[in-house]
Parts: sequence; structure tokens; C-alpha cells
Amino acid sequence: MLPVFVLQESRTKHKMSLKLIPLEGFPLVEPGDDLVDLISKALVNNNLSLQEDDILVLAQKIVSKAEDRLVNLTTVQPSELALEYAHITGKDPRLIELILSESQEVVRVRRGLIIVEHRLGFISANAGIDHSNVSGPWGEANDWVLLLPKDPDASALQIRQQLQIRNKCRLGVLIIDSHGRAWRNGTIGATIGLSGLPGLVDLRGEADLFDYRLQATLVAASDELAAGASLMMGQAREGTPVVLARGFPYPLREGSLAELIRQKEFDLFR
Amino acid sequence: MLPVFVLQESRTKHKMSLKLIPLEGFPLVEPGDDLVDLISKALVNNNLSLQEDDILVLAQKIVSKAEDRLVNLTTVQPSELALEYAHITGKDPRLIELILSESQEVVRVRRGLIIVEHRLGFISANAGIDHSNVSGPWGEANDWVLLLPKDPDASALQIRQQLQIRNKCRLGVLIIDSHGRAWRNGTIGATIGLSGLPGLVDLRGEADLFDYRLQATLVAASDELAAGASLMMGQAREGTPVVLARGFPYPLREGSLAELIRQKEFDLFR
Repeated sequence: MLPVFVLQESRTKHKMSLKLIPLEGFPLVEPGDDLVDLISKALVNNNLSLQEDDILVLAQKIVSKAEDRLVNLTTVQPSELALEYAHITGKDPRLIELILSESQEVVRVRRGLIIVEHRLGFISANAGIDHSNVSGPWGEANDWVLLLPKDPDASALQIRQQLQIRNKCRLGVLIIDSHGRAWRNGTIGATIGLSGLPGLVDLRGEADLFDYRLQATLVAASDELAAGASLMMGQAREGTPVVLARGFPYPLREGSLAELIRQKEFDLFR
Repeated sequence: MLPVFVLQESRTKHKMSLKLIPLEGFPLVEPGDDLVDLISKALVNNNLSLQEDDILVLAQKIVSKAEDRLVNLTTVQPSELALEYAHITGKDPRLIELILSESQEVVRVRRGLIIVEHRLGFISANAGIDHSNVSGPWGEANDWVLLLPKDPDASALQIRQQLQIRNKCRLGVLIIDSHGRAWRNGTIGATIGLSGLPGLVDLRGEADLFDYRLQATLVAASDELAAGASLMMGQAREGTPVVLARGFPYPLREGSLAELIRQKEFDLFR
């Protein structure tokens, strides 16, 4: 059952503005931690309370850690295929083994690089497996890696539902990671899971100012939000893995990662 | 000569938050219009004044229109090659002719689709040529198309310098367009020109919390801002083509589109 929603007045000066507020002083997350508790405390510490239609943007890392997606490389036995790709890439064969186990297809392999279709459907380097800012129970950082959450849409939904009940308002939750792009340098934040907000917004068929019908204006709204919020998380510090987004301009609705994944038969670039 | 910069106190409640404020009531832009004048008036109408380190994000369309990049299709004579691509794509051969004249290389051609390397270096559908929201002097919308600005970095610099002199503070100017992605559905805002802010921010070599050196963390900061600001422009309405970004988290510096363009020899996906 969804809770009763209480509509609150927006307190922002400019009605239509979007505010991206990183929660400062967010603690290091450990396996088993209750993210809803940590987020709630961080909101209080930042003098913030959630309002109707707020969206919480979470870095993948804290969700994965809370869900104990840590793997110690010393426990991984690389396959023949992993050894082969390790030879080509120069990467640790145990890491390659994990990348393959998290993937549906290998898209490109070069020295220093392995790009795959993740089992969640998106194309990513290293299957999103993270080797930085990861420490195991005894702090031997270099042996530990962090896989993406098992089902980020489900993680987002669970966190959202609990936050909605606690705060008695409708919310969205967006889980993001940094992705490279095919043709451009640098990474940008991108959706890996969401609940309560649209992945895509379809503006096709809406008349523009001159009544010329837009032919293909499908906006990846949650990816635009992911990129903007990522800007406020930085990359190196795990200190700001939660950003409160207030003023998202499209109506909230149920959404899913699947909206954003181009089906393979329409993919011209792999 | 750059003007003397006066550092102003930030007025945002949360020191580190990013605010994306669309300027409401922005007028329709006509060829020859002075964008600096229009932006200055719109700021006043929105009760805003520019502060040190503010960034103005401009939709490509208004820059292109002010620079009179309108072309009437009835003036275009398609080449043999354009006719051939028109046959494959089902698009107007005169439009194809313009796309080719704005491109360095054709990357993919299919029914309904032509993806090129634009002469500015990025990969884009239709060379960024816009057929919506475009009207000529007599309003016969469907004959008119809009090319991208000739040199968007230069356009951004010129607008920035004039705004800096008028407002006596250091600013950034970012010109954006909506781009499709190789593997994901929907468009997101992306940089096509900039001045006074970094395209890329290099975090490589910065220690993370566990002193594990980040290996490849090059953030496309201006693209993250472009995507976030695009969210607040919408797509169909030309009514909000300027967004004021306040609270960009990285130091402003000179920047250029070239930072963001992956060199062809490192491009695995064309």
C-alpha cells in the first residue's frame, strides 16, 4: 500500500528551478547498513526535509556496498576465456572473470579496456565493477572489488517506498553510475536503476511553437538528471554519494531502466 | 582586456548546491538579434543578477538563429550523393545536401536516419540541423531549416566577454544541443561550444578515500551540466532556451569543445 501523499508548498524562490543539493557528511557505507536510515539522518544533519516530488539520486557505490556486493579477488578462479582476455587487456584475470560473470556479451576488447553489455542491458566498461574506494573488512583495499547491485530498479523501489512512508510524500529514487561514451571523452553520470520517475519522456507529437510536429523527441529525462546530479557528487570522494534533486520538471510516474536501453536490433554501434 | 572581477557572496542556502534556473518569458529570437541584450533583459525580468562564477547555458537554436544560420530548402541544389542518401533514408534530398555540407564523414545511413561526424568534430544525427521551431520571414515553416552556429566556442566567448563587462564578474557560457546516444534511448543535452568553463575535469591521480589511485576518472563536467540544464529547457517549446547555472562545483577556466571530442584513432565505435 502506498502512503497518503501530502502536497507541500515549494520553498524555492524560482518556481521552475531545479536544485541539486549534495548531502554533506554522508558516512562511509558498510555491508548491511540501512541506507534509508543513513539518508534520513543525513537529511536532518543537512537541515533538509523531503517534499512532494523530491528525487533522491544515489551513487551506485553506496547501494552496492549496503547490499554487500563486495568480492575479494583472492576467492575468484579465472576461466580460460578470462585468462585470454586478461592477456589482451593486461588486466587481472580474476577481475576479468568477474566482468564476464556480470555480462551478457563482450563488445570490445583492447589493451587496457574491456567493454561489455552488462547483464542489466547497458553497455559499460568493466561491467561497472569498481576497484577504487573499496575496502574489505581488514582494509586490504586492492584485493576487493565492488559489483553493481543485483537489481537496481528493485533497490530503488525499496528505498523509495520506505522513504515515502517515513516522509508521507511522493518521491523518486535514482541510482547512477559514471559511464563513458562512444565518441566523447570523459564520463558522465547515467541511470542504472530508478523508481518513481520517468526514464524517458515522450514529447513526440507535441506541437512546437510553429505547429511543426516533432518527429523524434524522446528525452532521456532520468539520464539528464543523473548527469546533473553526478556533477555534485564528484568522483574521487565517497563523501557526497547522495544528492537531493528538487524541481524535476516532468510529472513523476513509475519508471524502469529498461526504458533507456536501446534494443539490440536498433543498435547500430556494436 | 578582461574586466576586473568582483567576488560576490553566494546567496544560496546550501553552499555546495547547484541551481538550474530557466529564464522564463524569453522572446523568440530573430536573425541579427543581440543575444547579450536579450539575456540581460530576461535576467532583469526574472529578478536575477549575475554573480561571480555563474554559467549561462544557451540552447543552440537561439545562437544559430541570432547568427542567421537559417537556410531555405528551396535554395538548395542536391548533389548526386545527396540524392543517393535521400533514397536510402527517405529524407528530403535538399536536407541531405545540407547535412553533407556540414559534415566531415558519414558514419551510418539507414531508412529514416543519417549519422555523421559534424565538421565541429562530434558525432550527430542530421548534422544537428533542426527542422522544428524554425520559421522564415514569411512563416512558411516547413521550407526552413537551421544549421548549427559556425563556431560555437567563438560564439560562447563573445557572449561571455560582453556579459562579463556588463556584470563585472567572471562567467562561463555553454551552448548545448540534444544528442542521441549509441546504446541508449532518448536524447540528452550535450556541449557544442563553451567558454570560461572546463569541458573535462581530470581527477586522475587524486587519491580516493582509501588512497587507491583513480586510474581513469576524467569527468565530462560541461556535458554533465549540459544534460542537467537541458532538463530545464524542455524540448518542444522554445520558451526557455536560457538556463542560469549557479553553483558549478569546479573552478572556472578557459575550455573548448575539442576537449570533449574523442580522437578518431581512439574511437572504437564508428
